[in-house]
Amino acid sequence: MTEIKGAPTLDDVAKAAGVSTATVSRCLNSSGRVVAATRDRVMRAVSELGYTPNFGARVMAAKRTYTIGAIIPTMENAIFARGLQAFQEELHTKGYTLLVASSAYRPEIEEEQIRALVSRGADGLLLIGHDRAASIYDYLERQNVPALVSWSYQSDARVPSVGFSNSDAMQELAEEVIRAGHRNVAMISGICEGNDRAKMRVQGLKKALKQYDINPDDVPIIETPYEIDGGAAAFASLMELTPRPTTVLCGNDVLAVGALRKAHDLGLDIPGDVSITGFDDIELAQIVNPPLTTVHVPHREMGCKAACELVNLVEKTSDGKSIKLQTFVSKRNSLARNQN
Amino acid sequence: MTEIKGAPTLDDVAKAAGVSTATVSRCLNSSGRVVAATRDRVMRAVSELGYTPNFGARVMAAKRTYTIGAIIPTMENAIFARGLQAFQEELHTKGYTLLVASSAYRPEIEEEQIRALVSRGADGLLLIGHDRAASIYDYLERQNVPALVSWSYQSDARVPSVGFSNSDAMQELAEEVIRAGHRNVAMISGICEGNDRAKMRVQGLKKALKQYDINPDDVPIIETPYEIDGGAAAFASLMELTPRPTTVLCGNDVLAVGALRKAHDLGLDIPGDVSITGFDDIELAQIVNPPLTTVHVPHREMGCKAACELVNLVEKTSDGKSIKLQTFVSKRNSLARNQN
Repeated sequence: MTEIKGAPTLDDVAKAAGVSTATVSRCLNSSGRVVAATRDRVMRAVSELGYTPNFGARVMAAKRTYTIGAIIPTMENAIFARGLQAFQEELHTKGYTLLVASSAYRPEIEEEQIRALVSRGADGLLLIGHDRAASIYDYLERQNVPALVSWSYQSDARVPSVGFSNSDAMQELAEEVIRAGHRNVAMISGICEGNDRAKMRVQGLKKALKQYDINPDDVPIIETPYEIDGGAAAFASLMELTPRPTTVLCGNDVLAVGALRKAHDLGLDIPGDVSITGFDDIELAQIVNPPLTTVHVPHREMGCKAACELVNLVEKTSDGKSIKLQTFVSKRNSLARNQN
Repeated sequence: MTEIKGAPTLDDVAKAAGVSTATVSRCLNSSGRVVAATRDRVMRAVSELGYTPNFGARVMAAKRTYTIGAIIPTMENAIFARGLQAFQEELHTKGYTLLVASSAYRPEIEEEQIRALVSRGADGLLLIGHDRAASIYDYLERQNVPALVSWSYQSDARVPSVGFSNSDAMQELAEEVIRAGHRNVAMISGICEGNDRAKMRVQGLKKALKQYDINPDDVPIIETPYEIDGGAAAFASLMELTPRPTTVLCGNDVLAVGALRKAHDLGLDIPGDVSITGFDDIELAQIVNPPLTTVHVPHREMGCKAACELVNLVEKTSDGKSIKLQTFVSKRNSLARNQN
């Protein structure tokens, strides 16, 4: 091997491995697009030369990094886990690596994370829901980093989405509840500010109420963070109302699990005394007793299709198609006919 | 504003905002270290100029990116969620942004993700457990990217760790089980290959068995992925053994939840007919019925201390101190005295 002065460059690695600089870049960013033997040769050259790809030359040489960023509101309770796993698996087959940031539902942290992912060279971003400052979409446009929204579907938004109608989904469930004889219902919602999914779920309930001539103003709605303890506390408050609601619709399964736990603490039989419903159909919904009647969201299909569309945007083989997925009510045992 | 030819540079932004290029870099990477008014001025300049920080000049100018990478084996079932949340919160107060990758317990994917995070300029990496090829540690050393291991403690390893002894923790729980009169026990373990935490938990059980003169070779151990369905299937197999185990120790809470579900399906009373124990004390452990006797892992403390130590490594204020945290047995209702 010839002696090299100073820090090795991308060219040095390419020469040592007998490949083009583009191939070296591909090797450093994703293994999927280079045959194994070539990749091994390049990686050996990288090792022997002690090449440091994160400063300068490489970034200039390879305009694409084969890295996709996703920013989700939370990693707790696995709300986004199954969809994200499918998203990652599909990206992997296409040669992209996924980096995830979690914003704790805080818009200022999400903005920091978007800037960090763009600064770190992400080719494209997956974002959850449409609700964010217009300046962020301006920034992404200027940076030329395509974004795709998921977990929400909105055909007229600034960026395309692969998701479902949170409003329609909750309306369908609420109508099911009302048809089971419950007119005295209540809702435990997530925090609506900055969260279009939460807002739309409340809107869906209100549409169902109007459909059946129930005044939405008569229906108590408590907003609380998507946490088990929040669901439990809200359920306790609702149980003190007169008349007591016969069904509590929860904004997601995590809140419903909290409601269920509190019901057990209060000695209430679910669904004998009160019915409880969830939303999302995460694994938790089937573990609790009784298992939750909830809205089934097609997590894996959503993650998979979102990956395809985002890669299409990055590779400019599509200018962004929005896809609306179907949800359905998954009937288990936490909702019963109203016997009162 | 003066007209600028070609793509704007870091210098252009600094001049337009009236700050140093270092300040611009800090603004683009983390907001915590710059006063709000300065940051606003810089961001306005970035917006007006349409500065694209991901190509070239910026990466050369700022040696530190204030980005930390973490690679966890899975985002499902929230095994790592609480610890990671604390890790991120602590990093945030120190002005660092966290990017997470999840390897699906596959070493080849973890290696890709390590390379991707280093290529994207991560200042330091959090890794789970010590088990990985020496070549990866060589690579990180050459790249000058410090790494810290968590969820495992090993004082003589190549990189420092902030974790706990998985062996001691399981030994303590197993001794508790044996002292409750159970000598005919079985274990459902995670896959040990490439997972030092899983290996050490099995080792801890074996130490406890020897302590009480039980031959470890007589104790059935089934390895299965950390999934609810895996725990359920393994539990079903164990229940067909003669004599039937009176306690099934599970490698984590997720497996224990699967075992519990299968027990219900089989009409077995827990803990009346069989006792089941978990490991980790994630939220799931308290939701199920009966709540799980499990090993309590100090998730938040671990995440918080890992963040401090990793930032110390990155900022070279420490050359890496390993910290051993304490676990304890959290006694709930899934373990009872053996009545046989």
